[in-house]
Amino acid sequence: MINVAVLGATGNVGQRFVEQLADHPWFNLTTLAASERSAGKPYGSIVKWRLDTPFPEKIGKIKVVPTSPRAMKNVDLVFSALPAEIATGVEREFAEAGIAVCSNASSHRMDPMVPLVVPEVNPEHLGLIDMQKDAGRDGFIVTNPNCSTIVMVTALAPLRQFRFTDIRVATMQAISGAGFEGVPAMAIYDNVIPYIGKEEEKMETETLKIMGTLKGKKVLNAPFKVSASCHRVPVIDGHTMAIWVDIKEPVETLKKAFRDYKPPIRGLPTQPAESVHFFEEEPDRPQPRLDRMRGKGMTVSVGRLREGIRFIAMGHNTIRGAAGASVLNAELIVKKKYL
Amino acid sequence: MINVAVLGATGNVGQRFVEQLADHPWFNLTTLAASERSAGKPYGSIVKWRLDTPFPEKIGKIKVVPTSPRAMKNVDLVFSALPAEIATGVEREFAEAGIAVCSNASSHRMDPMVPLVVPEVNPEHLGLIDMQKDAGRDGFIVTNPNCSTIVMVTALAPLRQFRFTDIRVATMQAISGAGFEGVPAMAIYDNVIPYIGKEEEKMETETLKIMGTLKGKKVLNAPFKVSASCHRVPVIDGHTMAIWVDIKEPVETLKKAFRDYKPPIRGLPTQPAESVHFFEEEPDRPQPRLDRMRGKGMTVSVGRLREGIRFIAMGHNTIRGAAGASVLNAELIVKKKYL
Amino acid sequence: MINVAVLGATGNVGQRFVEQLADHPWFNLTTLAASERSAGKPYGSIVKWRLDTPFPEKIGKIKVVPTSPRAMKNVDLVFSALPAEIATGVEREFAEAGIAVCSNASSHRMDPMVPLVVPEVNPEHLGLIDMQKDAGRDGFIVTNPNCSTIVMVTALAPLRQFRFTDIRVATMQAISGAGFEGVPAMAIYDNVIPYIGKEEEKMETETLKIMGTLKGKKVLNAPFKVSASCHRVPVIDGHTMAIWVDIKEPVETLKKAFRDYKPPIRGLPTQPAESVHFFEEEPDRPQPRLDRMRGKGMTVSVGRLREGIRFIAMGHNTIRGAAGASVLNAELIVKKKYL
Amino acid sequence: MINVAVLGATGNVGQRFVEQLADHPWFNLTTLAASERSAGKPYGSIVKWRLDTPFPEKIGKIKVVPTSPRAMKNVDLVFSALPAEIATGVEREFAEAGIAVCSNASSHRMDPMVPLVVPEVNPEHLGLIDMQKDAGRDGFIVTNPNCSTIVMVTALAPLRQFRFTDIRVATMQAISGAGFEGVPAMAIYDNVIPYIGKEEEKMETETLKIMGTLKGKKVLNAPFKVSASCHRVPVIDGHTMAIWVDIKEPVETLKKAFRDYKPPIRGLPTQPAESVHFFEEEPDRPQPRLDRMRGKGMTVSVGRLREGIRFIAMGHNTIRGAAGASVLNAELIVKKKYL
Repeated sequence: MINVAVLGATGNVGQRFVEQLADHPWFNLTTLAASERSAGKPYGSIVKWRLDTPFPEKIGKIKVVPTSPRAMKNVDLVFSALPAEIATGVEREFAEAGIAVCSNASSHRMDPMVPLVVPEVNPEHLGLIDMQKDAGRDGFIVTNPNCSTIVMVTALAPLRQFRFTDIRVATMQAISGAGFEGVPAMAIYDNVIPYIGKEEEKMETETLKIMGTLKGKKVLNAPFKVSASCHRVPVIDGHTMAIWVDIKEPVETLKKAFRDYKPPIRGLPTQPAESVHFFEEEPDRPQPRLDRMRGKGMTVSVGRLREGIRFIAMGHNTIRGAAGASVLNAELIVKKKYL
Repeated sequence: MINVAVLGATGNVGQRFVEQLADHPWFNLTTLAASERSAGKPYGSIVKWRLDTPFPEKIGKIKVVPTSPRAMKNVDLVFSALPAEIATGVEREFAEAGIAVCSNASSHRMDPMVPLVVPEVNPEHLGLIDMQKDAGRDGFIVTNPNCSTIVMVTALAPLRQFRFTDIRVATMQAISGAGFEGVPAMAIYDNVIPYIGKEEEKMETETLKIMGTLKGKKVLNAPFKVSASCHRVPVIDGHTMAIWVDIKEPVETLKKAFRDYKPPIRGLPTQPAESVHFFEEEPDRPQPRLDRMRGKGMTVSVGRLREGIRFIAMGHNTIRGAAGASVLNAELIVKKKYL
Repeated sequence: MINVAVLGATGNVGQRFVEQLADHPWFNLTTLAASERSAGKPYGSIVKWRLDTPFPEKIGKIKVVPTSPRAMKNVDLVFSALPAEIATGVEREFAEAGIAVCSNASSHRMDPMVPLVVPEVNPEHLGLIDMQKDAGRDGFIVTNPNCSTIVMVTALAPLRQFRFTDIRVATMQAISGAGFEGVPAMAIYDNVIPYIGKEEEKMETETLKIMGTLKGKKVLNAPFKVSASCHRVPVIDGHTMAIWVDIKEPVETLKKAFRDYKPPIRGLPTQPAESVHFFEEEPDRPQPRLDRMRGKGMTVSVGRLREGIRFIAMGHNTIRGAAGASVLNAELIVKKKYL
Repeated sequence: MINVAVLGATGNVGQRFVEQLADHPWFNLTTLAASERSAGKPYGSIVKWRLDTPFPEKIGKIKVVPTSPRAMKNVDLVFSALPAEIATGVEREFAEAGIAVCSNASSHRMDPMVPLVVPEVNPEHLGLIDMQKDAGRDGFIVTNPNCSTIVMVTALAPLRQFRFTDIRVATMQAISGAGFEGVPAMAIYDNVIPYIGKEEEKMETETLKIMGTLKGKKVLNAPFKVSASCHRVPVIDGHTMAIWVDIKEPVETLKKAFRDYKPPIRGLPTQPAESVHFFEEEPDRPQPRLDRMRGKGMTVSVGRLREGIRFIAMGHNTIRGAAGASVLNAELIVKKKYL
């Protein structure tokens, strides 16, 4: 068992980390970090638990520590649910202190020496860890993509074998993506907000890195273009997106690709039986409320593949798109013996 | 004053017709048609009024008649809110009986001799009425587009001066588009349904006819392609859509086109001060809840015009997208002296 | 293992029955009945699964039979999710054919010889089964209450030891209570509907029977009065209610009663660890979205106990309030050796 | 025309004030006060307009001033949409500077020398203004009740002629009552929050003052008791409530009282044609989405009057329950020549 900590343990994504790690077969959640003023208090007394799964009482007894490597003993890996503006410095500090950091923050995703990884898509990018070692870090940082990006790249994985140069994506994103306090009910109820700050840029840049090629110690961006339009809709969890990709192959060939898809990596504890679930017959799926918990929230669902080429992808934004993604990356790190 | 009737007066769109016509300066709503079993009863006693505007009490006293030209006296123009499967025959019957039909039904939209009109986009298409006269009809049928199509073509009107060949559109459509009973709350609450029957086909074909060219007595389809992905979201009224159009001009040129836009027709009573409202500065508009009632529900709002070319369009689907569209067409018919 | 069937297996509550019974330790779900025209087809091919839990594939292979005792072999107990108008005759037919019926329908709830049971509240009422035997039935019917009633009576169980004569209850009920197609989105979105047909009457009469006393072979109604006001709110699952009860004891005494509460029956497989969860400290609980799945949907949550005496009760209306309630009754029947 | 100002002009209620006053026949909105850092800027440049009615462009040009009597010239009356913690001192300052204050804040409602008024219920309570004059103030403060209280007392007005001692009320309140940022979407979507801070206390105390009797220069509390249970539901505007009142008269007598009701005051510009609309026949009304805009948001709707005595009341919480209430009070002040 590897001892792990969660940074930013009281927030929306932090709670998802606690939920995912409370009974993990490889990781022992021993440490929870939160703001200075909570330090010393039991987690259960300071967190306002907002998930509909039962609060893990044993974790509730752990006393919270400050967000610093010095405040932690015997921790080998930390999961970061920190906001980007704090994460930049703190995550580097942990990495330099010899600790592995699996981060959900955006701060280091585009750093050329930091892997931006989805195990089913680009496990080999973990190789960038060597660059961090070369740069003198005792630990390292591994990041997972933005919650929309990860749904799209996972859905595109079965199609990588085909040539394409142009992707358009229109998202319909859940309110949980903005954190618990992020979207006032008055703003989104009976409404669509056709704008999410920096989201389109993230989808357009992160995708190229993730689907890029590791050459030596460098990732070469994928040779296509992504044009995104991102929108918030009144859905609690689950990002839905309409994707166009200019593949010339007939629809039937692509359907077969989805049916036959096998991810390049298998057997990670948090990995679902199906990384991509393909609705071939149902005319109106996937739907976030019905499909977001498929594979315990880790399966990305794809449907309505049709001429265009157009299709719909949907995944749980705070599980597959955040905490679960980081945990899956940590499992890959262990399996690949980087830890 | 021209005496008019509403066919299908008790449904969702039928109620919108009654609301739009109750105090119309040119039209005198004298007749309401509904199902056979309601005939003879006052409209107010059979309609379950579901709009949040006050019920027009004087209209409530009108006795309902069956849906047949023989049941109506002194009616020159009828508005049809009939379901497509009934509209096909009934509307033809009215036209042959010498009555002008302004229809919101899809039945005759693609008929080569029936105008499919948005006054701000293709008023000259009314010329097709002559074909119906040639075919021996005493009256005629004029149709308005599907509720999504009309929002898109109105938003595209300022851009027609530029060359493009490829349109992609992802819609986020309101539940009222399916009629009052159309969408169960259990189906759409906290959810997105990524499918609306026949909607994509309508957007892809109707757009080409509306933006096509009248040559002699024929409409030549517009020379571009539309690829649509249509989705239902939990919004009561107002269809929002993300549109990509492959115009090469710089964004600033297109912004100017929106700012300077003047519709080809002016002064119809139901026409709003702005047919297209352009949000140039606001980063997060239009939004259905805040903008759908702009111009009493007749203004189409456009925003987030950016590289791509991408932008957001939004309009009220049962006013601009249905009853208001038909009324505006009827006003155009009167102004152009077809009646 | 006892072989069981579900009647009305494709509807909203029917699907919940299948979910609850797919892996039951005592019951073997061998038979599914649905409408005549589905007979002979595999359940998986005719059901439109609308729960967010995975569809039980092995159950999907079972061929559906008509709703008649003659169509079933080796079935000892049936669960009825039939609509009331059909249930009246059908359930009696099954009981007369020697089969035990656990019904969620309202048809026989107020029949003096049919037990209306909540295991934690009035398990002894199963004694009424003898009356049905006396009347010559080979099988028998046992019913569970309406979904609102059951939440209230379960919440009142810890307070039965105190004297009271007057209960007022205002409900805020979920849309799933009306079935999948029951409430149009246009009717309930951004709205409250302050009326649910027959719901108030059910709460006012069923409560008195359930909390009544079995004397000989008769249930004497409880000696208090219930006045209900029932409202539909935009919530998917979980009925919330504000309850006033005129108990004179101090609030602290009642809090202790909730803390110390032990249900009269223990150890049924579907019974949750806590039949009643009491929020003593939290100012704003229970809440349906956060608390409805407590105890796998079988726990009724109570909070905000304060002077008045007033408190809030909340429970999952299609699990504790429907399918789970029937299954729990069936378990009690087995435990009490009526089967 | 009387020159008026709005304090707290950029918030949710402040915007409603601007909407109500932009074209008022008696009041000339000349001055808008907001936070220090906005001072000097045009209102249109600092307000984020969130109402779905058009922004009043002429008001948008007014330059905002600080919230102080010294910053205003020629203002005779101010409307206060300030938060309670600020309102306490500021409103007193304005009153002492000789300005009439119509306040929606809770700060001074229970002050024995401040009228807490609903024109249709207790117009004579304006007599308390004399106490403020006696205390040496040049101006005075008049308050309107909390948004839930005002709906209830207006609905009770037709029943004041009957004897009762006990009121129970369960509210289902809209999210706009908490201000624009007050309720996160994650908190209320698909949910009920059975708690609103201090709301029950306000309903229980304010009601007794409003329905109390002015004797000399003092208001004697009404001789009954109110027990409230307050809940937030996913509705944008419109507070719905179930009310029990122990009147012994038959239901028919009370129905007649509602039918025959005439408010004690008439002819104020903001007063609707019907202060109380009574749904006698409809089984399922009032409903917030359909009825909140009745009388331009100033009518309180009542329905489902039945044995118990029970009924449902509903009113728009930010118009009748806030800005509109203050404006109506100001009109009463003018009519009664206190200004």
